[in-house]
Amino acid sequence: MRVVCLAGGVGGAKLAEGLQQALAPGELTVIVNSGDDLERHSLTICPDQDTVMYTLAGIAGPEGWGLAGDTWQVIGALARLGEGTWFRLGDGDIATHLYRTERLRRGERPTEVAVALGRALGVPSRVLPMADEPVRTRVRTDGGWLDFQDYFVRLQQAPDVREVRFEGAERSQVTPEVAEAFRAAEAIVVAPSNPIVSIGPILAVGGMRQEIAAARRRGVRAVGVSGIVGGKALRGPADRMMASLGEEATALGVARRYASAQLLDTFVIDRLDESLAGGVRALGLQVVVTDTVMTDVAARVRLARDVLAAATAAPA
Amino acid sequence: MRVVCLAGGVGGAKLAEGLQQALAPGELTVIVNSGDDLERHSLTICPDQDTVMYTLAGIAGPEGWGLAGDTWQVIGALARLGEGTWFRLGDGDIATHLYRTERLRRGERPTEVAVALGRALGVPSRVLPMADEPVRTRVRTDGGWLDFQDYFVRLQQAPDVREVRFEGAERSQVTPEVAEAFRAAEAIVVAPSNPIVSIGPILAVGGMRQEIAAARRRGVRAVGVSGIVGGKALRGPADRMMASLGEEATALGVARRYASAQLLDTFVIDRLDESLAGGVRALGLQVVVTDTVMTDVAARVRLARDVLAAATAAPA
Repeated sequence: MRVVCLAGGVGGAKLAEGLQQALAPGELTVIVNSGDDLERHSLTICPDQDTVMYTLAGIAGPEGWGLAGDTWQVIGALARLGEGTWFRLGDGDIATHLYRTERLRRGERPTEVAVALGRALGVPSRVLPMADEPVRTRVRTDGGWLDFQDYFVRLQQAPDVREVRFEGAERSQVTPEVAEAFRAAEAIVVAPSNPIVSIGPILAVGGMRQEIAAARRRGVRAVGVSGIVGGKALRGPADRMMASLGEEATALGVARRYASAQLLDTFVIDRLDESLAGGVRALGLQVVVTDTVMTDVAARVRLARDVLAAATAAPA
Repeated sequence: MRVVCLAGGVGGAKLAEGLQQALAPGELTVIVNSGDDLERHSLTICPDQDTVMYTLAGIAGPEGWGLAGDTWQVIGALARLGEGTWFRLGDGDIATHLYRTERLRRGERPTEVAVALGRALGVPSRVLPMADEPVRTRVRTDGGWLDFQDYFVRLQQAPDVREVRFEGAERSQVTPEVAEAFRAAEAIVVAPSNPIVSIGPILAVGGMRQEIAAARRRGVRAVGVSGIVGGKALRGPADRMMASLGEEATALGVARRYASAQLLDTFVIDRLDESLAGGVRALGLQVVVTDTVMTDVAARVRLARDVLAAATAAPA
């Protein structure tokens, strides 16, 4: 079963890993958010892409990002040179960024570089950036507009977010590789990533919603998973961000977002949120209630199987 | 005594260290060859500049280049990604290149970056690239034209060199910093670096010979040191290169090169080459015969003092 999964960083990577294990090799394509990408120390860094690739290669660090067993020689030397090193990069991770930056500078498209990097890392699935054009997520706080990683890493998501924009999205367009993945897809999965700043940028790419809609018109089912459980984001600032943007910081709030975007057939929520199922159904979505907290690999695969089952269920 | 020293890599760095110790802090300016600079793994690498800076900062590796005690995590990870890693870069060294590359990309001039890097590394002297414009040394072998580091590092100087050119030199121009250093200079020293591919590119920069000539007209004396002792280059391929270019691979051959460029007042040769002193004098140069092999720091300082004494001696 050929599956296209929309994903951000750590949470998305976990479900992608479950899907990769539940599917035959090569059946999974992950479209990753590139709105968090940044330039630091002359390197082009793609945090979500790398998190997903490292996870799917089985070499991600214990906290879900970076590389397992990485060392910190370069960043230490940069600090001694007086460079700001709030965006900490491991040595093996820097090798990834050097590989990427060199190819980009040579004129390869970001998608080509991602495919080459995935192959070099031994990733059995395809990991595609959402677009080849640069899209940069920026957030407005009471202190003004910030680059995403400034807010996310340097300020550790402390400020309230009042507004979000995806700079460059209006000039971006789905790549041939992304379009091809949707045309071949038999199911679409929206990972339990931050709906605003992980899934949001992907949906803002020119032609992305149309590709999803076209697949769904062909009968392909789209299943989303809530990244908010019991009113708390499993990871990251999605709950506080939804609240400060005036949305409901619950699985129902996430469902409302996706329903208004006419993105999904089915929404998967945690047992803890069973009481919200009626509200989600009232939005016109089917509901699956299951264990969504991916505490270990077995849990990732279990959730992936539940998602795939929902994607193959007969329409209600 | 304010001294300007023209230098390439390891040999030049050794004499520069001796000069730095023999002079008051801040009195030494080293103009380094940038014809060996290269782009690798998206980084701008300046081997001679870094060798001189690391040496003057007291942090150079045991073989004279790279950093003492450096680690090799990044290059190992790049090799695992399938990248060609014949140009081996240590982790701390990579931090230097990231620092440099980022500033260059921001639009700073190479000279500004070198000065900032020297300050960050705690170098008490000024290390200036010979020019801000890119100049690239290329060598013609029987197998065709090669980039310098291709010849020097990848092929380990095995092929015979039939011709040398400094691409871009015709569009290069001495920087305000280099011109200022010559205007303030009380002595000019040409280090025992490769006369063809280390000193050669420096002299090929637009206006460089004129700056040297102007200083000498003011009475500033220029003293060169032979990097060839007993017919052998102390380091690198200078002897074989001179031979394959049809020049005499001895201290006298080096003296002939510099005499025909009207570069020097005095040439310093090793005791081993005392028999060549008459030949050097016949070229119109004064000769100093001394120990020129810098086996340790004390020997570097001794040679530096001999060079400075020659630079202050009354004209013959």
